[in-house]
Amino acid sequence: MSPPANDGPFPPASPGGGLFSGTTARGGAAEQVSDAAWLAAMLDVEAALAVAQARIGLVPAEVPAALAAACRPGLYDPAELGRAAARTGNPVIPLVAALRERVDPGLRRFVHYGATSQDVNDTAAMLLARRALEPILEDLSACAGACARLAAGHRGTVMIGRTVLQHAVPITFGLKAALWLSALDGARTGLTRVPLPVQYGGAAGTLSVLGDRGHEVPPLLAAELGLAETVVPWHTDRGPVARLACALGVSAGTLAKIANDVKLLAQTEVAEVAEPTGPGRGTSSAMPHKRNPVGSMSVLACVQRIPGLVASILGGMVAEHERAAGPWQAEWETLGELLRLTGSAAAWLREVLEGLTVDAGRMRANLDLTRGLPMAERVVAGLGGTPGARQAVDAACARAVDEGLSLREALLAAPGIALSAEEIDAALDPAGALGSADTFVDRALAAHHNGTGAGP
Amino acid sequence: MSPPANDGPFPPASPGGGLFSGTTARGGAAEQVSDAAWLAAMLDVEAALAVAQARIGLVPAEVPAALAAACRPGLYDPAELGRAAARTGNPVIPLVAALRERVDPGLRRFVHYGATSQDVNDTAAMLLARRALEPILEDLSACAGACARLAAGHRGTVMIGRTVLQHAVPITFGLKAALWLSALDGARTGLTRVPLPVQYGGAAGTLSVLGDRGHEVPPLLAAELGLAETVVPWHTDRGPVARLACALGVSAGTLAKIANDVKLLAQTEVAEVAEPTGPGRGTSSAMPHKRNPVGSMSVLACVQRIPGLVASILGGMVAEHERAAGPWQAEWETLGELLRLTGSAAAWLREVLEGLTVDAGRMRANLDLTRGLPMAERVVAGLGGTPGARQAVDAACARAVDEGLSLREALLAAPGIALSAEEIDAALDPAGALGSADTFVDRALAAHHNGTGAGP
Amino acid sequence: MSPPANDGPFPPASPGGGLFSGTTARGGAAEQVSDAAWLAAMLDVEAALAVAQARIGLVPAEVPAALAAACRPGLYDPAELGRAAARTGNPVIPLVAALRERVDPGLRRFVHYGATSQDVNDTAAMLLARRALEPILEDLSACAGACARLAAGHRGTVMIGRTVLQHAVPITFGLKAALWLSALDGARTGLTRVPLPVQYGGAAGTLSVLGDRGHEVPPLLAAELGLAETVVPWHTDRGPVARLACALGVSAGTLAKIANDVKLLAQTEVAEVAEPTGPGRGTSSAMPHKRNPVGSMSVLACVQRIPGLVASILGGMVAEHERAAGPWQAEWETLGELLRLTGSAAAWLREVLEGLTVDAGRMRANLDLTRGLPMAERVVAGLGGTPGARQAVDAACARAVDEGLSLREALLAAPGIALSAEEIDAALDPAGALGSADTFVDRALAAHHNGTGAGP
Amino acid sequence: MSPPANDGPFPPASPGGGLFSGTTARGGAAEQVSDAAWLAAMLDVEAALAVAQARIGLVPAEVPAALAAACRPGLYDPAELGRAAARTGNPVIPLVAALRERVDPGLRRFVHYGATSQDVNDTAAMLLARRALEPILEDLSACAGACARLAAGHRGTVMIGRTVLQHAVPITFGLKAALWLSALDGARTGLTRVPLPVQYGGAAGTLSVLGDRGHEVPPLLAAELGLAETVVPWHTDRGPVARLACALGVSAGTLAKIANDVKLLAQTEVAEVAEPTGPGRGTSSAMPHKRNPVGSMSVLACVQRIPGLVASILGGMVAEHERAAGPWQAEWETLGELLRLTGSAAAWLREVLEGLTVDAGRMRANLDLTRGLPMAERVVAGLGGTPGARQAVDAACARAVDEGLSLREALLAAPGIALSAEEIDAALDPAGALGSADTFVDRALAAHHNGTGAGP
Repeated sequence: MSPPANDGPFPPASPGGGLFSGTTARGGAAEQVSDAAWLAAMLDVEAALAVAQARIGLVPAEVPAALAAACRPGLYDPAELGRAAARTGNPVIPLVAALRERVDPGLRRFVHYGATSQDVNDTAAMLLARRALEPILEDLSACAGACARLAAGHRGTVMIGRTVLQHAVPITFGLKAALWLSALDGARTGLTRVPLPVQYGGAAGTLSVLGDRGHEVPPLLAAELGLAETVVPWHTDRGPVARLACALGVSAGTLAKIANDVKLLAQTEVAEVAEPTGPGRGTSSAMPHKRNPVGSMSVLACVQRIPGLVASILGGMVAEHERAAGPWQAEWETLGELLRLTGSAAAWLREVLEGLTVDAGRMRANLDLTRGLPMAERVVAGLGGTPGARQAVDAACARAVDEGLSLREALLAAPGIALSAEEIDAALDPAGALGSADTFVDRALAAHHNGTGAGP
Repeated sequence: MSPPANDGPFPPASPGGGLFSGTTARGGAAEQVSDAAWLAAMLDVEAALAVAQARIGLVPAEVPAALAAACRPGLYDPAELGRAAARTGNPVIPLVAALRERVDPGLRRFVHYGATSQDVNDTAAMLLARRALEPILEDLSACAGACARLAAGHRGTVMIGRTVLQHAVPITFGLKAALWLSALDGARTGLTRVPLPVQYGGAAGTLSVLGDRGHEVPPLLAAELGLAETVVPWHTDRGPVARLACALGVSAGTLAKIANDVKLLAQTEVAEVAEPTGPGRGTSSAMPHKRNPVGSMSVLACVQRIPGLVASILGGMVAEHERAAGPWQAEWETLGELLRLTGSAAAWLREVLEGLTVDAGRMRANLDLTRGLPMAERVVAGLGGTPGARQAVDAACARAVDEGLSLREALLAAPGIALSAEEIDAALDPAGALGSADTFVDRALAAHHNGTGAGP
Repeated sequence: MSPPANDGPFPPASPGGGLFSGTTARGGAAEQVSDAAWLAAMLDVEAALAVAQARIGLVPAEVPAALAAACRPGLYDPAELGRAAARTGNPVIPLVAALRERVDPGLRRFVHYGATSQDVNDTAAMLLARRALEPILEDLSACAGACARLAAGHRGTVMIGRTVLQHAVPITFGLKAALWLSALDGARTGLTRVPLPVQYGGAAGTLSVLGDRGHEVPPLLAAELGLAETVVPWHTDRGPVARLACALGVSAGTLAKIANDVKLLAQTEVAEVAEPTGPGRGTSSAMPHKRNPVGSMSVLACVQRIPGLVASILGGMVAEHERAAGPWQAEWETLGELLRLTGSAAAWLREVLEGLTVDAGRMRANLDLTRGLPMAERVVAGLGGTPGARQAVDAACARAVDEGLSLREALLAAPGIALSAEEIDAALDPAGALGSADTFVDRALAAHHNGTGAGP
Repeated sequence: MSPPANDGPFPPASPGGGLFSGTTARGGAAEQVSDAAWLAAMLDVEAALAVAQARIGLVPAEVPAALAAACRPGLYDPAELGRAAARTGNPVIPLVAALRERVDPGLRRFVHYGATSQDVNDTAAMLLARRALEPILEDLSACAGACARLAAGHRGTVMIGRTVLQHAVPITFGLKAALWLSALDGARTGLTRVPLPVQYGGAAGTLSVLGDRGHEVPPLLAAELGLAETVVPWHTDRGPVARLACALGVSAGTLAKIANDVKLLAQTEVAEVAEPTGPGRGTSSAMPHKRNPVGSMSVLACVQRIPGLVASILGGMVAEHERAAGPWQAEWETLGELLRLTGSAAAWLREVLEGLTVDAGRMRANLDLTRGLPMAERVVAGLGGTPGARQAVDAACARAVDEGLSLREALLAAPGIALSAEEIDAALDPAGALGSADTFVDRALAAHHNGTGAGP
């Protein structure tokens, strides 16, 4: 089996991806939550801790260099650390043991100095999150950009608005894209505002090994790693992780809402939009009429799992005493999956939105399927407060439905409708019934472009 | 059966509370999410809509007064509306019909003008949330206040820190309370920052019934009701509800973490804290030694349900097209339960924390259970870099464990420990091994008092 | 406001139903999980316990009659018990106190004899479940019956099969209904097989108050109440509740699958089925073309909440020691909601399926939308192993797509297709391409009718 | 870093295990859900399909051998298939393409004959589940065996029963182990009863490619693979997967209940049980008094994630039409994680239970902490119906609590207690207050040994 060419718009899955990674590990986040990334982040924390401590004389000046040399990920094997972790319940403990082996014996006590394994694991998790959020935010931003272009470009593209999956009244595709845009901007804001704090509290939050100077370290460590400071060690206040999980959950839900709209609009009978194509993408020689919405489907597959993962994190907030026995350990894989799946969904939706085909003609044709009935309310409004206006229009509608007429035909034949044919045509023109759609498009675009949509 | 007196510290459950309301409907939020509260909020929205629209001439000037008269909750029966809602899937539709019956026929078309039922339901939900959040935030604030007092008052109360439910190293009860405080302040910040936006978009988000002036209404309506503005109608962008649910979820998790600590500390064998007592509260004549942690138990019972409810809201973000068929309707009860249960947990924990008995003597006694072994690390540190220090201390520890000695006895008898009895006593004094505990208490108190902990 | 007549096919919501009960409390289960039902079940348990104990002489012979007189639900107020429960964390404790007040002082010690409150609460929960399952199973059975009729009646109704929401190959509506039927029968089997055991273990599972005869009581109590026996008291083995929750979860998911199909098939553009209508049901005078799938929507709204509720129950299995502090108390409302919402979904779907309008003509018309392309695979098969058959048909398909031809036209014009016009017509006839659809319909009907589908 | 020896009772993590596999991938299930296992299962399905079809002449007789040769897992690279799957949303599609490359051109059309990718994926999932359930059931069985030994061996070991985490009344450790045993047997029964059916329905459930003989294949395929038959193809009836997920969920909850008990009993202050030790397991040279319950902690960490995963599966039951776009694809990784995490929890608990140290002396000492008060109820019972008995005992209890007396001292000094010192001693002897504990132990053991506990 020769390696398939990377043809068309489909980048390879993340390194380390497996059998299902095409669906669930697209985009840049997957690599950032791999075992290799965890290991690298843990080593970065150990190295930065030495730097921060040396800066204020808590460890000898030569410790940072010794750590820097030892903290190269290639020196350690995640699988081996994983096996060793079975004895202690934590991969940091064997990692520290291995690190110390690589450091001059006289300096070994300053490796992981004053730290507990959770300090390293939590800080590494925040570092990992920051790194994984970069591609996620970039893909979300690209999604928003695509929606902004769709909103601007289709502000005049009339289509039927659908409520409860039934035709309701006309909208524009631009307005639909504006809602997508506004939702994406809100999701991005939420993600960018989640603080990712450093963790450093020692065995039980007192940093007692450092005498009374331990509290000086966290701000320095935070600065070193580009993470947020924290009021107190948060070993058993899992708020930071829960807030991150929730922001990912809201973002994922937003992605799925858009994907679901695309999936529904791409149905064979609706066919108002289509996902981008490429060699072999979403097509089948056996079923040549199919153009499967592989991207939307993949977004929905990824996001299907998110609420349960968020619930696991929230449930795990019940951390016992100074360090927990179970709930905390459950976070590790869960957080990685939340980042990977949200990231995969964002990457998939980006591809869908950037390559979306919009069929304005079909939108108009679908709008006409109900032969003017969605405009009935507008005709009533056009009659102003005329007594009996609603009754007359209702009667015309009923007749149209019963006799298979268009609403126009029924209205023209209705005795009680005091409107000329021209007035009827005007009232039935969907383009005249778009209300504030255009203004809402403007608002969403303005909020997007001046950043009030997606935060600082 | 006559209404029982409100004896002792146990306020009656919310009006309408049922068999389990003692546990799950404590505090003020339950009443704010009752059917009566929903109905009142919906009517408030209908009345405010008329006021906003009259302000800019979209409806006749007499409409607001007519609506105000009709929008009295006592005029309508939630159960009857609920039954009628089975026909349409929405209680707002029969409510509007009933409202119109009470308004002068000439004004009826201006009732619910340009609105869709979801506009009213969503805006009412936000109003309801704001009202329910008031007692929740007040109870959270009282919880934080109690923690601040505990942190300040017990900064010198030494106790054992427990990790993985095992004795680790000494901390203070003040430090434990400081973590609780910091977590609560973070939770409150999150809740206060959730925007609660008005909803007004008409049948499909265009407000077409109002011509091109519909977009002027939402800001006025928001001002009238004290809610946030919104960029575009958010009928199928459920971010606002999801963000609220998540903030409640994080708050609830925080409450449960504290309650769990109390529950564990109140175990018969630990007995370091006890919940407040009252007539019949948590006690049993049949088991006189029991002092059940009813409050912590109730917090945990309420919060047990929260992650699943948050997951339901997140899962329901996949709203179809312009208005959803299923996911949205699932929000109504879920949101009410999230507010009620989080509120109940907050009210319960407030009572627990405000009346918490702390037994400093027992804390010290428990710390001594392991006869100095938690201080071993400190003895090693006291020996500085002396070669073989750790090995010597480890050997003394092993001997202490094997022979049932205290660590002091073992150290005094150990050949390789170059410490005097006084030095050993100093090293074994937990009060000297508290590291930065005091500074962390100060930080948590400062953040609490200047509001950086709990937002603007 | 006078009680509305029960007009048309819409039965009133359950007694006690509120604003949202039209959607979430349809059918008979809601009433069976009301506060009144809980209270009645608890009293039934207390009364039955006395009967069981009197039978073997553990309590005086007059106790059962005394209890029977006192155990009338109308004597007690759930709200008052709820308030009193705040002191103890359990409504059974004040209920027992109130019961004892109503019994001759000399017999009071035999009220609730040897029992702990959880014994009564758990057994009442099982009784409640059995009572609520009756209407649920009846509605599920009616749903299955309707599907069986649809499967049998539409075994010849050809429609397009849809995969990934795209037209795939022909099926029959009968086959679709057969899958619904088979899934429903599986769900019913699961529900009927869940054992609902009695609980009776006393304070900590030893029944020590009864000396060494306590173990004789559970089988008698089970017989008295029509519940299952149990091996040991299961105070902290929540398997029985979890199994019930899971079976409800699977049933609810099945209902939602069917409702979702109906919702999709009822889309304006698809219009292959329609939900039953009635006065005001799912219709709007303002939007006369709409026929909202209120029933399917309501099923989906109810079921949206189920997975989170099941997760709460599963998470609550981690019950501490002999009786739990939190997880157990969280079950009460959750179990009621699971029964109510599953029951409401079943009642809604029953109405939908029993009144479903099926438009066979539209099914055929939709199938023809893709002008024969779904039959391409069949044409290839018709060509047998002819070399190049697939390539030739693929080319014809591509031409059909490109030039807007039907597949028939493209095939007739294709040089390499060795088929006559008659053979092509035969190959393109969907009725000839239904494979084993009919046999599968037969199998589902047979399994349904002989009960192998839905258990004993 | 040299590979650590596999010392003591800690087997290496599964092949492919990563950084956290020590905690989350213990036991045999992890390997059975690896990418390699998925690939092998898919290939087994393709090969078995050919065998089944050849048996009834649907494919040429030489096809099975050709497939057998091509269906060797080593020939294919999961990562590459994963990348290719991004085009189609499914790894089976590129796998089939690769398979065909390895088969004689004339037979290629009989590879994957009449099947859709979901047929292979679903059947492979069931095969995978069966293979992963083997070690899970073995570990569960070993857990139950260990509990049976504990129940039998400790039927006379008196300890305090704890309710709401407070001392209640005496039980035996044997009774506690009997509840564990009974719960485990129930969980095993549930798992063994889940049918794991074959899937084979073709593109949309009709198997139309096989003419009217398609329905003959599923039973043969089921026999070939040792899976269950099915009534109809279940592409969008996800009951089989949901039932499996639920049974895993109940099993996992049971494991966590037991682990939580162990964790609580192993607390420093309680110390009634201890987990097995080994080189470096759960111990720390820095904190020599600690003996961390690494096993229980790991069980709880694994199970913390389960309810959310089950909820994802239940939520994904809403599968559209004939094959779903999103919910189904979300099952793949979720099912693997459910099996892996439940398996890891079972393997961890097995180690914990098989090596559990039980300290009967400490149990007795803890029971005595409350100085006889848990026996108060028994003293009341010992006084029979004597008027005022309860009041007198209550008074003695109150005096004992207030004055720091034992209950014995208080009773001897109490005027109204008509009991001799010998009678008081008898009433206060916990060994005489164990009710039916022994009988319940017998019942649990009998049910276990004759298999009525854990199914057929």
